[in-house]
Amino acid sequence: MRSVIMEEPGKVVVEDRPMPTLLEPTDAVIKLAASCICGSDLWPYRGAQPVDHQQMGHEYIGEVIEVGDDVKTVKPGDFVVGSFCISCGECATCQDGYPSRCLKAIAAGDGFIGMRSNGTQAEYARIPFADGTLVKTPAYPTAEQIPHLMAASDVLGTGWYAADAAKAGPGKTIAVVGDGAVGLGAVIGAKQLGAEKIIIMSRNPERQALAKQFGATHVVEERGEEGIAKVLELTDGVGAHGVVEAVGTQQAFDQALGCVRHGGYIGFVGVPHDSSIGTDVLFGKQVHLEGGPAPVRKYLPTLIDLIYKGEIEPGKVFDLVLPIDEAPKGYEAMDQRTATKVLLTM
Amino acid sequence: MRSVIMEEPGKVVVEDRPMPTLLEPTDAVIKLAASCICGSDLWPYRGAQPVDHQQMGHEYIGEVIEVGDDVKTVKPGDFVVGSFCISCGECATCQDGYPSRCLKAIAAGDGFIGMRSNGTQAEYARIPFADGTLVKTPAYPTAEQIPHLMAASDVLGTGWYAADAAKAGPGKTIAVVGDGAVGLGAVIGAKQLGAEKIIIMSRNPERQALAKQFGATHVVEERGEEGIAKVLELTDGVGAHGVVEAVGTQQAFDQALGCVRHGGYIGFVGVPHDSSIGTDVLFGKQVHLEGGPAPVRKYLPTLIDLIYKGEIEPGKVFDLVLPIDEAPKGYEAMDQRTATKVLLTM
Repeated sequence: MRSVIMEEPGKVVVEDRPMPTLLEPTDAVIKLAASCICGSDLWPYRGAQPVDHQQMGHEYIGEVIEVGDDVKTVKPGDFVVGSFCISCGECATCQDGYPSRCLKAIAAGDGFIGMRSNGTQAEYARIPFADGTLVKTPAYPTAEQIPHLMAASDVLGTGWYAADAAKAGPGKTIAVVGDGAVGLGAVIGAKQLGAEKIIIMSRNPERQALAKQFGATHVVEERGEEGIAKVLELTDGVGAHGVVEAVGTQQAFDQALGCVRHGGYIGFVGVPHDSSIGTDVLFGKQVHLEGGPAPVRKYLPTLIDLIYKGEIEPGKVFDLVLPIDEAPKGYEAMDQRTATKVLLTM
Repeated sequence: MRSVIMEEPGKVVVEDRPMPTLLEPTDAVIKLAASCICGSDLWPYRGAQPVDHQQMGHEYIGEVIEVGDDVKTVKPGDFVVGSFCISCGECATCQDGYPSRCLKAIAAGDGFIGMRSNGTQAEYARIPFADGTLVKTPAYPTAEQIPHLMAASDVLGTGWYAADAAKAGPGKTIAVVGDGAVGLGAVIGAKQLGAEKIIIMSRNPERQALAKQFGATHVVEERGEEGIAKVLELTDGVGAHGVVEAVGTQQAFDQALGCVRHGGYIGFVGVPHDSSIGTDVLFGKQVHLEGGPAPVRKYLPTLIDLIYKGEIEPGKVFDLVLPIDEAPKGYEAMDQRTATKVLLTM
């Protein structure tokens, strides 16, 4: 089967690799209907984290073709959406609402897609703990629904979680730092959760336009101190009730901290790279901070339902569609910011 | 009037100073019934933060002797308890439940006790924004109630907030890092909020005993990695649902992070000194973090009610009572850890 490999930073190839197989009785193997390239894939691509001939990809939708003996909730022929985090659905952490830190999956060495088997920028993939990880869709999706479901697998689910952690809700003002696919997903989440004012911080006209379609009410183009000043202007000088941090850099964190009000909430989902927070700053601002790998699985039933009802169209974040063999072009486009998010077809 | 002055690190004296007066029509002046020395007073005492002839003290209970023209809720003769944070009770931040970051008080230069006038280790003190800051007790307190109310003014209120931020509640396990008066107050808070298992991390036999009186169900004497391992043992290897950090050092933060479960809560109230948290650690643990100057004012009505009903006895944290003129001895005792908390009488 075809599989996307990052041989070293900046060097992506597509090669034939062996078909994945069931390793555990709780596994499923799926045939991908589509995959995509994640903003977080750019960290190793740009040399900001090590990579050595890795089979890439952690976002997936597709059809189940084989299940282990212990799998009960999905069967061959089912169309499924899953998360990059593997979850049993039964352990204390899953039950607490954090399937992204599933104790059983982590103990099994299967905490994330691709840890014990291949990634999902491939034609087929092994999914551990299928019962707790996969959600069956109500019907086989149409071609139009494919990108929306694909977005639900990670960027929408992750943005939604960040909006939830930022306590988006009726009457609230939410600022979103980061206009990538996750930030745009956070706009959808904030809107659906009822936020009154949604500020997207973006200097890219196309992303601004999409953010507005998704529910953003205000755009702030400035960054750093100037951006913070603009957000304060829009919030009676007090700051946003909640801020989504969807980048992961020190600059983005500092911006989020500057934009939030005392007693407010920051939901952070950008994978952190060399950033830290002085506890004196957190103490002084007295914000609530929550972040980590998004518990997407928890939100999937809601997201799939909204997609099938036609109430959200998160797939619009994909502005470049390429066959899997052209994945290297997709990486280049995202690296150069000529594409927000790349969908790969099989 | 007598007032405690820290001339420089390690040098405390008691001298006569002018009586405080009303500076604003929203002020009150109170006659202190008692005051106390705070763990945070030890930072400048030990040279860890600058100090220059400062009138010390921010905890207070006493009788109102004079009010400004705009004060409506308290009058001369009323016995009151207040918080070290000044609050108007009306601004967006006060209304959001964060009177400790009151917008009006901060704008007026009166955010904390002692900013525009003297501290409360003194016979009299000016209290800004009296209506939003002071809470009248249901009756003039008995001698036995004085230390309990005194504790409510800061250490109990602060510990209670930390327990609340750590989401103490029925069925929950709460670990408390720090066995000072605030940590002990957090034990009371966790107990009253319904926590099932309360772990105090302490190697001091007297503090352990008091923590048990207050509701601690387990004691962990070890620190650092060994302490974390013990807490994991007591929590099925998963970690506490919530952790109170009541010290402020890097070591205490790291210990709190190690003791909490994925998706858990850390309430931190130790005033941070040179500590920081890598956002990658927060991301990996996926904890909720909240801390800052405690919004004690919010909790005072509840705390006062419990004290008058005799349901809590937080004043037991005071293990040394000295007349104000002997305040220097009190600082020495707390610095040497021969006293947990010193009550000063007038």
